[in-house]
Amino acid sequence: MAAIGVALWRYIMRYAPHTPDFFNRDRFVLSNGHTCLFQYTWLHLTGYKAMTFEQLKSYHSDRVDALCPGHPEIEHEGVEVTTGPLGQGVANAVGLAMASKNLAATYNRPGYDVVNNHTWCMIGDACLQEGVALEAISLAGHWKLNNLTIMYDNNQITCDGSVDLTNTEDVNAKMRACGWDVIDVEDGCYDVEGLVQALTKARASTEKPTFINVRTVIGLDSKVAGQAAAHGAAFGVADVADMKRKLGFNPEEHFVVGDAVREFFADLPARGEGFVKEWNDLVQRYTEAHPELGAEFQRRVRGELPADWQERIPTEFPDKPTASRASSGQVFNPLAQSINSFMVGTADLSPSVNMIWKGKVDFQHPDLRTTCGINGDYSGRYIHYGVREHAMAAISNGLAAFNPNTFIPITSSFFMFYLYAAPAVRMGALQHLQVIHAATHDSIGMGEDGPTHQPIELASLYRAMPNLLFIRPGDGEETAGAWIAAINAKTSSTIISTSRHALPQLKQTRRDGVLKGAYVLEEAESAAVTLIGVGAELSFALDVAAELKQKNGITARVVSFPCQRIFEQQSLEYKRGVLQRHKGIPAVVIEPYAPNGWERYANAGISIKRFGHSLPGKAAYKFFGFETGVMTDKVGDYLERIKGDEALRGEFVDL
Amino acid sequence: MAAIGVALWRYIMRYAPHTPDFFNRDRFVLSNGHTCLFQYTWLHLTGYKAMTFEQLKSYHSDRVDALCPGHPEIEHEGVEVTTGPLGQGVANAVGLAMASKNLAATYNRPGYDVVNNHTWCMIGDACLQEGVALEAISLAGHWKLNNLTIMYDNNQITCDGSVDLTNTEDVNAKMRACGWDVIDVEDGCYDVEGLVQALTKARASTEKPTFINVRTVIGLDSKVAGQAAAHGAAFGVADVADMKRKLGFNPEEHFVVGDAVREFFADLPARGEGFVKEWNDLVQRYTEAHPELGAEFQRRVRGELPADWQERIPTEFPDKPTASRASSGQVFNPLAQSINSFMVGTADLSPSVNMIWKGKVDFQHPDLRTTCGINGDYSGRYIHYGVREHAMAAISNGLAAFNPNTFIPITSSFFMFYLYAAPAVRMGALQHLQVIHAATHDSIGMGEDGPTHQPIELASLYRAMPNLLFIRPGDGEETAGAWIAAINAKTSSTIISTSRHALPQLKQTRRDGVLKGAYVLEEAESAAVTLIGVGAELSFALDVAAELKQKNGITARVVSFPCQRIFEQQSLEYKRGVLQRHKGIPAVVIEPYAPNGWERYANAGISIKRFGHSLPGKAAYKFFGFETGVMTDKVGDYLERIKGDEALRGEFVDL
Repeated sequence: MAAIGVALWRYIMRYAPHTPDFFNRDRFVLSNGHTCLFQYTWLHLTGYKAMTFEQLKSYHSDRVDALCPGHPEIEHEGVEVTTGPLGQGVANAVGLAMASKNLAATYNRPGYDVVNNHTWCMIGDACLQEGVALEAISLAGHWKLNNLTIMYDNNQITCDGSVDLTNTEDVNAKMRACGWDVIDVEDGCYDVEGLVQALTKARASTEKPTFINVRTVIGLDSKVAGQAAAHGAAFGVADVADMKRKLGFNPEEHFVVGDAVREFFADLPARGEGFVKEWNDLVQRYTEAHPELGAEFQRRVRGELPADWQERIPTEFPDKPTASRASSGQVFNPLAQSINSFMVGTADLSPSVNMIWKGKVDFQHPDLRTTCGINGDYSGRYIHYGVREHAMAAISNGLAAFNPNTFIPITSSFFMFYLYAAPAVRMGALQHLQVIHAATHDSIGMGEDGPTHQPIELASLYRAMPNLLFIRPGDGEETAGAWIAAINAKTSSTIISTSRHALPQLKQTRRDGVLKGAYVLEEAESAAVTLIGVGAELSFALDVAAELKQKNGITARVVSFPCQRIFEQQSLEYKRGVLQRHKGIPAVVIEPYAPNGWERYANAGISIKRFGHSLPGKAAYKFFGFETGVMTDKVGDYLERIKGDEALRGEFVDL
Repeated sequence: MAAIGVALWRYIMRYAPHTPDFFNRDRFVLSNGHTCLFQYTWLHLTGYKAMTFEQLKSYHSDRVDALCPGHPEIEHEGVEVTTGPLGQGVANAVGLAMASKNLAATYNRPGYDVVNNHTWCMIGDACLQEGVALEAISLAGHWKLNNLTIMYDNNQITCDGSVDLTNTEDVNAKMRACGWDVIDVEDGCYDVEGLVQALTKARASTEKPTFINVRTVIGLDSKVAGQAAAHGAAFGVADVADMKRKLGFNPEEHFVVGDAVREFFADLPARGEGFVKEWNDLVQRYTEAHPELGAEFQRRVRGELPADWQERIPTEFPDKPTASRASSGQVFNPLAQSINSFMVGTADLSPSVNMIWKGKVDFQHPDLRTTCGINGDYSGRYIHYGVREHAMAAISNGLAAFNPNTFIPITSSFFMFYLYAAPAVRMGALQHLQVIHAATHDSIGMGEDGPTHQPIELASLYRAMPNLLFIRPGDGEETAGAWIAAINAKTSSTIISTSRHALPQLKQTRRDGVLKGAYVLEEAESAAVTLIGVGAELSFALDVAAELKQKNGITARVVSFPCQRIFEQQSLEYKRGVLQRHKGIPAVVIEPYAPNGWERYANAGISIKRFGHSLPGKAAYKFFGFETGVMTDKVGDYLERIKGDEALRGEFVDL
């Protein structure tokens, strides 16, 4: 891939090694992240300060502060996104290109192109096999993202052998069918000039994204050139020495960069600072010419929201049963309507997820004319992703990675389908990207669609996933709290999990309680048990407490527990105050999900340990024993049982 | 879609309504499963006995034993696979077609085509957007599965509106580029004859799978015909009455099937029994002509393994440190080599997952000639899936669904990438399909690839997933136990999670212990603590126990805990006997994963609650505090702390 690197980093790409976060820089994504030494080498040669020669040697070493991990990581200077699992980078690159398009359409004015950068994405054979990339490729073609170029390192080798073991399709024809321009480069190993021409043409594209199919040879000049053996294993000392001899290097010398090479790249930092100065001047003149727009643009560059954002959220909700997905819209849509930072997407569930605000404009190519008559513009901030959950989340990571908090991307779909999106949700959390996932139709209460749509075990994944806030609000007030928590979490991703069906608006709920993860909903002196209610079933806990009192004369406290991760961040004192298990009061959690993980907070659980069942919501609750009377009896029985068997208190009991 | 149904169920498809499990039947997959009433209606009209008229009315009803759930379910007569999440069905259909190809290539003999069925897969616009379908489509073209036909209900409508909101690609060109034949049917609403011709041509294809692009109108003859409003909502009483009038029905009548319609389908059960008899006769003659092959074929039809299968697993392992991924190969490859039921696939990680047996033949079109010289045949049972983890798992579900246990599909990849495959792993477990996932490179011990490859939270998902055995064996002996558990689990899916790095072969491990989920590895009188060791870190628990004794004079018991789900199936007595927490002995679990779920079995945990770090395996363990000395100190400190604070025993403590 060396020739591609020379063409790109020396001749084509606009960036500033000494100002790595230059806002209008071209973005480079290494989707085939295992070839990270490619990127690290260019970072070093082109003058990024952090990537010293010593650092370059840290690849696969024990050095804990190495800048050369096994895949590129966003935390490091000059790296735009963390890649690794294949295909993600392609979708990230689509998101980065959309970010440019949206900013340009929103802020550029005649004579003032404050955003006009290009996104370059390097891929290998495998990225073209992964579904997430294929989804994103289809969308990029649809959106005619002419500011996006994929460079395909077509070496026809993967781990197992030649690519034709598993792929015999006509990739160029497939890309053209998806709406891409295709350029072939036959000698990708040496033809730097041909590459420069191809890349230049790609940058100049006015209509379509560009796919450059570059024929290369893996392990060029080694004994295993063109073979799978060159993919994952080291060449060995003798072969490396041979290669060095063949290429005119001294085989006895290691880690040497000749003066000619250094000189070849020497002017890039200065050139970069030129770009930076030019842009800073431009933005200054722009702000003078367009003061209001300029101020907003600079706020976006700083990644800030209007100071009063929180005041736009309703302080009260109509006192009638409301699906929390509807509450979610009531809370968030005023923000989306008035604040450009929010880009809201859905995986083809607009009628269900309630994320459409008054006057929303779709993100679309301005020339698109759809059959249904809903068109848009690149300045639009509502994104129809089609039924592509995985790409939706991975593209959103790209939007968020453009510049810290310049965009806060929102995704939306049924909660169950966030299993499709999970690899990208993970990558967002891992990269500390603020992406908010509005997941609706949670619980078994979503009903008739049945077990394939009822997310019994999915909450367990997201409660365990680091740096992800998984929040199940119980009514409108808690939904407000969930959005506030998500928007405050500048370096975390969040899933807000809401119901399809109507929930009572509870008088005891508090949005600031959500910001603690869990809080006391109903306190009681000398309680025999704490009932933990969660999300769509929060009211069940209150109902059971009332019936326990009335039928059994048992006093129960009730705790609302929307988010385990936020609760974990509280002090031991706060946590014990909420749960009071240290006083010997047992806690019972009520949630129609797999109980895994609740054992930390509860002594027993009314939960589900099998897959769901297709029934209307209410009937599904009944089928699984989530009726007030049944649950009350279970709790009552449990309290009797532990009286006689102290050991039982120390064991989590499935009721 | 009615005309497609008439063409297919009346004229083309070979099946036997009164013998729904007829082995050589054509398979029908409704990938757009939300249109399930389509399938339920044909099941009723064509004479499936279970689908009575009363049952047909159960759609979206409270009836708990309804055969008309919101998406088709495999448990019900005439349904081949459970679909729901879009795209899965396409991959399932590819698996079903591969199953036919493999059986035919293995067992058919001149004059005796004992397997020659066709697979028909119905899809909507959305299935062509989902990555899993795009992966599977690419593979089906590569394998030239001419026994597979996709019927595309091209109504250009999804929930959000017209498909051109998100898709403007040339789908026919894309399918051709992927190696498919394409047939257009312009009037898919009425042209039954044209559809019959297209389906006939598809069945006769000799070279490629066939994609029939059928133009239809959604909500035909309703007021919302051709609009998104026809997708998810009911038409309403008035519009339904209008439609009935327009089509010559009495609008006052509901749930009526006219005699002419009944008559039109009346002979299908008898025709089906004819197919069954013909095939039974054929198999009888075949078995006479080819006794050995016939016997094996009939054993496969019954879903049985050779009685002595377990004896082929090594009883001992060389006493040297061995990666459990290598042990996995030592255990399983003798079975794969000698038993045709096993079909083994990998998502391009052959060199890493150790699943290649001596003499393995690849599943490939016999005419394929690859650049690397590795070719195959349809009788081959080693499958190169390319880097397509999701399709690998979904296709494996199709293989398993062909007939109960005729195939036991194996998938293999790094454990982390089973997050890509998760939606299909879930569908396998949900359908009670025996699919075994050989996941390697688990834990942080996999090292340099870094946080994107280190599966911190993934075990939490799979331990919570119903009907899925997630097993982490600790050495060769336990790996034998894991495979035995997986192969015995005829109606569950299993993940066997193994290490990249070498593990000591422990003298205390027992394969039959794995079959209990957890067992005592080292018992001790008057122990102060139980240490729970798991999988690749099992030996850590033994090391800590030894050092606790030596340095602190503390006696520890050690429990090996490879599988939570199997352990849950044991008696309370057994469980208490293993853990002994009821005797007041606290348990500490050691696992470099998110601790979520271990709180059920342990009082404290040495775990990881953040994402990983790119370091060589040993350095990664050290970085996260998984060194014997550090862990010993943590356990010692914990035992001190709970002496002074009884409440702490009742709370899970992160050490």
